[in-house]
Amino acid sequence: MTERTKVILDESEIPARWYNVMPDLPAPMPPPLHPGTGQPVGPEDLAPLFPMELIRQEVSADSYVDIPDVVRDVYRLWRPTPLYRAHRLEKALNTPARIYYKYEGVSPAGSHKPNTAVPQAYYNAAEGTKRLTTETGAGQWGSALSFACAQYGIDCEIWMVRASYDQKPYRRTMMETWGATVHASPSRTTKAGADILAADPDSTGSLGIAISEAVEAAGGSADTRYALGSVLNHVLMHQTVIGEEALKQFAVAGESAPDLIVGCTGGGSNFAGLFFPFLREKLAGRINPVIRAVEPAACPSFTRGRYAYDFGDTAGFTPLLKMHTLGHDFIPDPVHAGGLRYHGMSPLLSHMYELGLFEAEARQQRECFAAAITFARAEGIIPAPEPTHALASVIEEAKRCAESGEPKVILTALCGHGHFDMAAYQRYLSGEMEDFELSQERIDDALTRLPTVAG
Amino acid sequence: MTERTKVILDESEIPARWYNVMPDLPAPMPPPLHPGTGQPVGPEDLAPLFPMELIRQEVSADSYVDIPDVVRDVYRLWRPTPLYRAHRLEKALNTPARIYYKYEGVSPAGSHKPNTAVPQAYYNAAEGTKRLTTETGAGQWGSALSFACAQYGIDCEIWMVRASYDQKPYRRTMMETWGATVHASPSRTTKAGADILAADPDSTGSLGIAISEAVEAAGGSADTRYALGSVLNHVLMHQTVIGEEALKQFAVAGESAPDLIVGCTGGGSNFAGLFFPFLREKLAGRINPVIRAVEPAACPSFTRGRYAYDFGDTAGFTPLLKMHTLGHDFIPDPVHAGGLRYHGMSPLLSHMYELGLFEAEARQQRECFAAAITFARAEGIIPAPEPTHALASVIEEAKRCAESGEPKVILTALCGHGHFDMAAYQRYLSGEMEDFELSQERIDDALTRLPTVAG
Repeated sequence: MTERTKVILDESEIPARWYNVMPDLPAPMPPPLHPGTGQPVGPEDLAPLFPMELIRQEVSADSYVDIPDVVRDVYRLWRPTPLYRAHRLEKALNTPARIYYKYEGVSPAGSHKPNTAVPQAYYNAAEGTKRLTTETGAGQWGSALSFACAQYGIDCEIWMVRASYDQKPYRRTMMETWGATVHASPSRTTKAGADILAADPDSTGSLGIAISEAVEAAGGSADTRYALGSVLNHVLMHQTVIGEEALKQFAVAGESAPDLIVGCTGGGSNFAGLFFPFLREKLAGRINPVIRAVEPAACPSFTRGRYAYDFGDTAGFTPLLKMHTLGHDFIPDPVHAGGLRYHGMSPLLSHMYELGLFEAEARQQRECFAAAITFARAEGIIPAPEPTHALASVIEEAKRCAESGEPKVILTALCGHGHFDMAAYQRYLSGEMEDFELSQERIDDALTRLPTVAG
Repeated sequence: MTERTKVILDESEIPARWYNVMPDLPAPMPPPLHPGTGQPVGPEDLAPLFPMELIRQEVSADSYVDIPDVVRDVYRLWRPTPLYRAHRLEKALNTPARIYYKYEGVSPAGSHKPNTAVPQAYYNAAEGTKRLTTETGAGQWGSALSFACAQYGIDCEIWMVRASYDQKPYRRTMMETWGATVHASPSRTTKAGADILAADPDSTGSLGIAISEAVEAAGGSADTRYALGSVLNHVLMHQTVIGEEALKQFAVAGESAPDLIVGCTGGGSNFAGLFFPFLREKLAGRINPVIRAVEPAACPSFTRGRYAYDFGDTAGFTPLLKMHTLGHDFIPDPVHAGGLRYHGMSPLLSHMYELGLFEAEARQQRECFAAAITFARAEGIIPAPEPTHALASVIEEAKRCAESGEPKVILTALCGHGHFDMAAYQRYLSGEMEDFELSQERIDDALTRLPTVAG
């Protein structure tokens, strides 16, 4: 073929600014509310958890925020990331579609998560934080924050969902290699964890429970704060380095624009990071891609959740967030895409979904792993379970193009590699992987416990 | 710091030719011998195992061999690989040394091995091979060949050392994801394996045994051949893409030359791939680096082995190779650097060592993992156990520079990531990792069984 396979940019082209989509939206998003008063939360409510600069970014009305040089210096370890043209996948599918994927698995932690972990650790270190707490499910976020904290010399303490802690000891070792302390959640190190264990000593935990523990642990001391790996506005903004680079790389590749952008969504940050800069161009009338979120059928917050105020965690420590939610105590079936097993969704993305700025669909995991095998044999890279959801959608679309003859330009986010997810591949290859049917009754039941908004 | 962290080359700068060091050597290397006749083996002896083009390359007197475009097209999936300046490691060590590492872990299989797996699979496919057999220890080579065979649509059958097969199920799944069939070795699928099992039903295998099985399995049918991941001349030559790129990248970085080049050695291919092009420049009088091989103290073929004719495998199926060997039935203690646990050494490198073209040293694994932790916390990347041997030497050298004030320029090969080796990191971090003392008696005993050369 002898055609360009990947577009690589020089380090000097690492974006100098993050893009803040909020000022460009046709309507402002509903604010987070204090659960007691029903009033919007202010900076003083968030200050025990986050450094002031991140609180400023969370509500910023500026279209751009400068990326500090010391953050870009750490980004240099793996950024700019490659944009691949999937020549070999196209050939395997015999499709006229032109498929591009932006690959974030080249980061030390193996996913897009360090894009926000690094600035979060930096701003905390700059404001005197000595210790950061967080939760992790599959381990991608915990790995990223451990790496980032090692870069700025601050301690990192992680509550890892018990099911993953037991099933994925190597992710835990990765975090410890970078110097972090890892607890299985629920744990007895917090009241939230101890209460859960008192009710159910065999609890295997959930992301919502682990968030409760990490938030509680951060509240206890003045030099400890909390970091969140998705959902919040500043997190999504940090991820826009992905889309800004991809825009430049599209130009280098000689493509005017994608016809379709596809990303997987759990909390929403990887999808947002890819498409926000393209949406800016779309809102300005320069391009017109269809934009699509793909979520797991076992945790379908966009496609089957309710747009309502809910807690971000199980214990109800967080402000109330207006988002697509399945209910804060909804525990998804154990699909392998641990990073997508979150009951809620980014409030910013939820708002944008209500505005009709993108579409969403849900997929079962066996179809996703079938897509992953096709992809891996063609392109080499073995994807993490999360982006296989986007790949399944891309492959279906490319097959449609094979029938219609349409040379559609498709862009997707390959947000991480699957090196720590081979047990899931083993289950798929051996025929043991199952799909889960989620009954409407389970969703309706969890939604009966949505908090009532005071005031 | 805001200094360049990595030098990336465009795809168009993937080398167009492999460099063959043999014509540049001051003396020819001793030929492989037929064990029965004591005479040099000819192409007809090798034809049942290898395609003719690889046999030609094995004995080529040409200084360069063109890389086929269809091979370069697959290289595009990850090459050129980045050359990193280890700013953060230098800072952590407070050293005036300038440390560079060429990172091969960006390949789909996670190491340098695909550099030769891809052309080997290609030449086989081009000459009608339908199935390739091979052995693998830690799994790096088996992964690479599985990936390469998927690219050219040929079957791949792998004998994996039983100890690794049981300890590293995820490497096995990786190979299966790319479509390979994996047997635990010793197996009952070959006579060599069945014989070993008859004598010792609980055998956990060795690389030498697995080679015997893969060679035997290849001999049985006309459309099946065998592939070796290191040791042979053509394998080392394919790896020279590493050093050729590094030479260009040094120029881009504004460095005239390294003062010291350090690589780890098992069979020798990653070390050779890095330094051969630099040696060409040194032999031409243009640069003058010190070149150093680092091997595990548990398997010290250069530093404590004998330079003699020996078999490449345990059962004695291979030609006799003149190399630094610990004896073909020597079983190294179970250090975690599985890729370095080979009783012999590349005959080409052995010859060059005798000619005084590089130096060698051996290191214990705990020192290597201590270096790995220092490296990972500074640079992010978690190294495979094999290159930690080179890192230990680099870090010691950089500390010496910190004392002497010498701004030495050091280049090393970071030949793979450690994502499938976290169990080893866990053992190190928990204090359970042990060093092994290798007695002279064990070496002397194994050497008593060296074959006698007839004729």
